[in-house]
Amino acid sequence: MEKLLTLLEEKKFKDLRGYLSTLHAPDIAEAMQEVNNKESLLIFRLLPKDLAVEVFSHMEPSYQAEFSELIKENELRELVNELNFDDKIDYLEEIPANLVKKILQNTPENERRLINQFLNYPEYSAGSIMTIEFVDLKKHMTVRDAINRIRKIGVDKETIYTCYVINNERTLEGIISLKELILSSEDSKIESIMNRDYISVETHTNQEDVADKFLKYDLLAMPVVDSENRLVGIITFDDVMDVMEEETTKDFHIMAGMQISEEGYMDSSVAGLFKKRFPWLAVLMISATFTSAIMEHYEAMIASMAILSANIPMLMGTSGNAGSQASTLMVRSIAVGDVEFRDLFKILWKEFRVSFLIGISLAVLNFIRMYLIGSYNFLLSLVVSLTLVATITLAKLIGSTLPMFAKKIGLDPAIMANPMISTILDALVLITYFTISAYFFNL
Amino acid sequence: MEKLLTLLEEKKFKDLRGYLSTLHAPDIAEAMQEVNNKESLLIFRLLPKDLAVEVFSHMEPSYQAEFSELIKENELRELVNELNFDDKIDYLEEIPANLVKKILQNTPENERRLINQFLNYPEYSAGSIMTIEFVDLKKHMTVRDAINRIRKIGVDKETIYTCYVINNERTLEGIISLKELILSSEDSKIESIMNRDYISVETHTNQEDVADKFLKYDLLAMPVVDSENRLVGIITFDDVMDVMEEETTKDFHIMAGMQISEEGYMDSSVAGLFKKRFPWLAVLMISATFTSAIMEHYEAMIASMAILSANIPMLMGTSGNAGSQASTLMVRSIAVGDVEFRDLFKILWKEFRVSFLIGISLAVLNFIRMYLIGSYNFLLSLVVSLTLVATITLAKLIGSTLPMFAKKIGLDPAIMANPMISTILDALVLITYFTISAYFFNL
Repeated sequence: MEKLLTLLEEKKFKDLRGYLSTLHAPDIAEAMQEVNNKESLLIFRLLPKDLAVEVFSHMEPSYQAEFSELIKENELRELVNELNFDDKIDYLEEIPANLVKKILQNTPENERRLINQFLNYPEYSAGSIMTIEFVDLKKHMTVRDAINRIRKIGVDKETIYTCYVINNERTLEGIISLKELILSSEDSKIESIMNRDYISVETHTNQEDVADKFLKYDLLAMPVVDSENRLVGIITFDDVMDVMEEETTKDFHIMAGMQISEEGYMDSSVAGLFKKRFPWLAVLMISATFTSAIMEHYEAMIASMAILSANIPMLMGTSGNAGSQASTLMVRSIAVGDVEFRDLFKILWKEFRVSFLIGISLAVLNFIRMYLIGSYNFLLSLVVSLTLVATITLAKLIGSTLPMFAKKIGLDPAIMANPMISTILDALVLITYFTISAYFFNL
Repeated sequence: MEKLLTLLEEKKFKDLRGYLSTLHAPDIAEAMQEVNNKESLLIFRLLPKDLAVEVFSHMEPSYQAEFSELIKENELRELVNELNFDDKIDYLEEIPANLVKKILQNTPENERRLINQFLNYPEYSAGSIMTIEFVDLKKHMTVRDAINRIRKIGVDKETIYTCYVINNERTLEGIISLKELILSSEDSKIESIMNRDYISVETHTNQEDVADKFLKYDLLAMPVVDSENRLVGIITFDDVMDVMEEETTKDFHIMAGMQISEEGYMDSSVAGLFKKRFPWLAVLMISATFTSAIMEHYEAMIASMAILSANIPMLMGTSGNAGSQASTLMVRSIAVGDVEFRDLFKILWKEFRVSFLIGISLAVLNFIRMYLIGSYNFLLSLVVSLTLVATITLAKLIGSTLPMFAKKIGLDPAIMANPMISTILDALVLITYFTISAYFFNL
């Protein structure tokens, strides 16, 4: 990167051109995003054409859109034409509609129809991440025929390591890996060695489920079929890795009470960040006024014994933490398929035991701190400790079950993570604490 | 699954055998983990040997250990012998040392030495996830020689799609993909077509960095070299997908204030869950007593104006949520490499503007709720609203910077997520609120 900047500054364009050709496309794309537009354009012009296309496909989507405005329209059109089909779709999804129209104006009618079909697959579906650049074979071919076909058409394909055997109606009949082809005798018929028990998905399958299947079956590529089992595309492992990263980011955002964003932090505007964060904060703040109502209900009690309120932040904090441990663990366990709704009672019973143990242990610790080390009276120490046992048990039970109910009614379980759980728990903690206090202090 | 259970119950073993051979290994492994030990063993005995090995390699590590005790020792030894090298290492890491010794007793000396070397690579390092089953080529070979070599040795290799060109000292000189081999003329020399600008890692590289490289460069496999660039193993994309999932789970656990666990939730014991959760809860609870001290300091003020305390839960909750939005976003941005320490001031400035906007908006909303809709007096509504502006700004600034400082001093940024930030914020919220109240109410 430094070397690149030096060469750029010293205007040693010939050396720069040579140096660039030794770099990997993702690194060049990264460098271009960090320099100014003029330098970025300069670097781009020095790239051999193939590499330029690859570099463009590795840029962040938002930067691709920005960069598109720097180059001439016909140059852009040519560039986009050279992109892999799935990269092309990703790009076209990102840019304004009028630019899409301009870029596609010379595209043949049938390809344009195909592109429009792909642009219409729902976001986060298998259809939206697949590509059409696969090797198709026929079952009557021999291994020799198949390898010859791969030699002929393979260079433009996203992968040649898994090939798809289809009939004249494009129905998928089997798959075969290049490994099997290479290791089989050249005269074998594809029909006799192809794998008929393949794993496939449909175009509308959620991308998260696609990723789960890749992970479970260690797949390199997976066919995407329509409702009549006709092959419409394939998804390759590298796109699935991106999906895994994207899905994790989505879960993080939802769990922290933000709206999902696909923009990187550094690319996000202040207004954009505001819009993603404000709605949930406002909803949660309004919900939290419920706690104020509870506090006001007990105002007389607090006024007569102000020391009571001193323990409220600790009680709410500790219960909130206990609840978020349970809810986070559950959100993750649901996401990786470790836990299902039918496990509900097993989980409740397990959490009950764990939380009771934790509650008792924390209560003892708290009692030692308040009564034995601190200077609090016996009764107050007891009341706070008892509240801890009760609220931690509540916190764990609620924290572990709400994500499952959310999933059951079709919501993302992550929505039941920390902020939501904490808000509910705050209210429950207050009610529990004041009820126990009223009993012991006869207030 | 249901069909399998029915066949099992009706003791139709012949049908069961036939049915099993149509299933995929991961599904059979999953089914075996759900039935009882006797049934599981029965299913296993009905599997053809190759499939049995594959099924075993797809079991959860904890179940592998459990299952090992069900079968005879020599049977187990044979089974383990057939595993891929990396699966073998994963398995041996999981079981008790005396069992390892028994299993390896007939293993040839040189393989045993290699296994011990692999068992010693640190957890979460490239060394611990790599395999030795790769195809090595020499640079003077022709494409024809290379393909013949792949045909001869390829069947036992983890991947044949990327081949590694090494010299007699095992120094890695280049890599070449099967795609390039297939698409090149048969008489080309490997030397002239191999790729010398390959991406590699060293044995001690953290697995998270390995995953980042796979993601960035869309790799199918990556060579692992020692400090003298000798090839010691390769890592394949399927293992990296597992790493990505594992790393996400680790982040979730740390963010919720739990110790990392590799066990699934359903496999965890009550005692195990207790041990993972209790330490942080205790630390945070003790830290939270700081809030009690602050509250006690203002005891007189609360006693004289109990209504003040009614707003504390809402203020702490809202600031906590605002802080956790910022910290979660930052933890994730650091993890995906979108943000670095040198961006600190840019981030502070951006967060300052976002948080000020959010603070003002929430304050206005709160003022409307308290003064215009509710029956609170003007001054109290004002004080609470002003506190919101101040604490939300604080929350965002602290939430966004602490993860970066954690990273800077070598801690996992995720540790600075919700529970830790909330505990710090609770104290700051109280101080701010009481200071503003004291000023406006002359208390």
